[in-house]
Amino acid sequence: MPHAEPLHAIVPAGGAGTRLWPLSRRGAPKFLLDLTGSGRTLLQQTFDRLAPVASAGGIAVVTGSAHAPAVLEQLGNLGEENLFAEPSPRDSMAAIALAAAVARRRHGDVVVGSFAADHVITDQDAFEAAVREAVAVARAGYVVTIGIEADHPSTAFGYVRAGDPVEVDGAVADSARHVLGFTEKPDADTAAAYLATGQYRWNAGMFVVRADVLLDHLCAQRPELASGIAEIADAWDGPARDEVLARVWPTLEKVAIDHAIAEPVAAQGGVAVVPAAMGWDDVGDFENLAGLLQEDQSGVRVLGDGDVLATDAAGALVVPGTGRTVTLLGVPDVVVVDTPDALLVTTREHAQRVKNVVGSLGPSRDHLR
Amino acid sequence: MPHAEPLHAIVPAGGAGTRLWPLSRRGAPKFLLDLTGSGRTLLQQTFDRLAPVASAGGIAVVTGSAHAPAVLEQLGNLGEENLFAEPSPRDSMAAIALAAAVARRRHGDVVVGSFAADHVITDQDAFEAAVREAVAVARAGYVVTIGIEADHPSTAFGYVRAGDPVEVDGAVADSARHVLGFTEKPDADTAAAYLATGQYRWNAGMFVVRADVLLDHLCAQRPELASGIAEIADAWDGPARDEVLARVWPTLEKVAIDHAIAEPVAAQGGVAVVPAAMGWDDVGDFENLAGLLQEDQSGVRVLGDGDVLATDAAGALVVPGTGRTVTLLGVPDVVVVDTPDALLVTTREHAQRVKNVVGSLGPSRDHLR
Repeated sequence: MPHAEPLHAIVPAGGAGTRLWPLSRRGAPKFLLDLTGSGRTLLQQTFDRLAPVASAGGIAVVTGSAHAPAVLEQLGNLGEENLFAEPSPRDSMAAIALAAAVARRRHGDVVVGSFAADHVITDQDAFEAAVREAVAVARAGYVVTIGIEADHPSTAFGYVRAGDPVEVDGAVADSARHVLGFTEKPDADTAAAYLATGQYRWNAGMFVVRADVLLDHLCAQRPELASGIAEIADAWDGPARDEVLARVWPTLEKVAIDHAIAEPVAAQGGVAVVPAAMGWDDVGDFENLAGLLQEDQSGVRVLGDGDVLATDAAGALVVPGTGRTVTLLGVPDVVVVDTPDALLVTTREHAQRVKNVVGSLGPSRDHLR
Repeated sequence: MPHAEPLHAIVPAGGAGTRLWPLSRRGAPKFLLDLTGSGRTLLQQTFDRLAPVASAGGIAVVTGSAHAPAVLEQLGNLGEENLFAEPSPRDSMAAIALAAAVARRRHGDVVVGSFAADHVITDQDAFEAAVREAVAVARAGYVVTIGIEADHPSTAFGYVRAGDPVEVDGAVADSARHVLGFTEKPDADTAAAYLATGQYRWNAGMFVVRADVLLDHLCAQRPELASGIAEIADAWDGPARDEVLARVWPTLEKVAIDHAIAEPVAAQGGVAVVPAAMGWDDVGDFENLAGLLQEDQSGVRVLGDGDVLATDAAGALVVPGTGRTVTLLGVPDVVVVDTPDALLVTTREHAQRVKNVVGSLGPSRDHLR
């Protein structure tokens, strides 16, 4: 297999992260936060991670208009031409297709890849190796996803099922396999059964594909959406951008790339998966977040600086955000998120239900969203 | 039995209330706080409760010098002559004996009664009836305690064991009985056994006794302490008070009235108990405090005003002290105490252990005590 070419990376930076409330807010979504105590936000870590595999100036961010200034501030090297500000959220297909269509017009049939702005990956070498193989397989015409080797039967992630090895330019690829299908988040028994087969990987939502291949698939699967994207992309680098964007963007179908392209194209045999054994997490909720942090000597995980005094609270997660001393007594696995206007007390077991709390805030507490 | 005479009430206002940390602090002890959401502090409620049974100007408060200004501010009707400021804590015997000795010098052989500043009583009529009978029995020479009818086998309180009825002036008292003995806080099995006998009442630490009887007992049991108290009391209403207090007070034995008088005099047959069926609580910890508050529609008890949003948190106790929204999810019986500099998260089950947390604060967190 030839040495892989560089990538035009697309980073959709959206999503409210409501399961991380009150840490994550409408005005301060997950990707703008440092959730690992590293000193870098998830968006900055995503940029850092992609820089070695992307071409020079080849990282674009698609985000809501409200977050565009914060994105530019956090990513000093991004360049305004690589910021795509959405007037309103239209889900991942529109976001990725627009950035891909503009990249194609600027650079030709480059390989693009979409990488969420709010995931954590702890093995950079494995990530780079997987991306480089994915780019090579994408060059051959596949839609390529990176499938994470599952180390436990998670019910929080979707899965991708791998079949036979893929051939690229007449040779068997290093590790890429055909994708037989994608699954929704399974229940616990199903997840265990998936793991036992050895065929399933976690679907990390990373897609690598030639820009022309992506847009051709979009044209076949969602012609109206493809047409709208093409009209905006044609105008993007000219004087009519704002007018066309304002007129066309609100009409675009809201659909995820998984449903619009990955699933139907997989059914046609056009999707490949490159397995990757690397620490990966979508930091979806406080249970995930706890798993990313080191325990202190009392078995408590603390995000950031803060004074925490814990007794019999092993497994607890504390996010101290007000400078106060947080004292835990006899509350193992508790989750305490201390912010200036809202305090959350729950347990890791209930982490997935936090989004329901946000849903129940009601008009009188709208300022807390 | 003749109509009972009025009482000179003595209110020892001490104790750190460390099991109610971080609500109760060194500088803001339990008795200075409104712990029932009534708008009146425990000290104010104690004063209100005693006013109907005490003589005019017949309520005295004994407290540490540091709290004297706050006591005077909270009790506008107290009068400075009824405030006894201790230079240092010498436990309840010295506090009560000093106030009793001064009352005797001012008013003769009046009946005095000691009532803690930080208890809650919810049946005023029953309280007054018990005190009036106690005063009558005390007039006849007994040390009288008020014993609370136990409604559950508490392990948090000491017990008093009642024997045969007492005779006063040749007639059997309404309900007073000889005290056979006092017990420490029992274990659960012992407490249940106490309840089954019907002989045991909770020891609420209320003692009613003629001032001369109290001081005679003190003289017999603790002659050195009695002598020191007499020297201070002799000087109290004259120019030498400060000098004598500063010289003698630090030499006084630290001992509780229970050990110094109640137990040995009970062994001699000199203590009576007046049973009282009334809601009573020493508000010793957050479990007790929760029991004093009404549940809201989500089964949560909230002390004071505050925005609390709870899901699956029945039995929880929240003390909102910072104006933030406190959100609970899946944490039944949790205790959340939210103060500007310290946040405590524990459960009602661990309420008694909170004092250990205060003990472990260490020098770096001394400002939080």
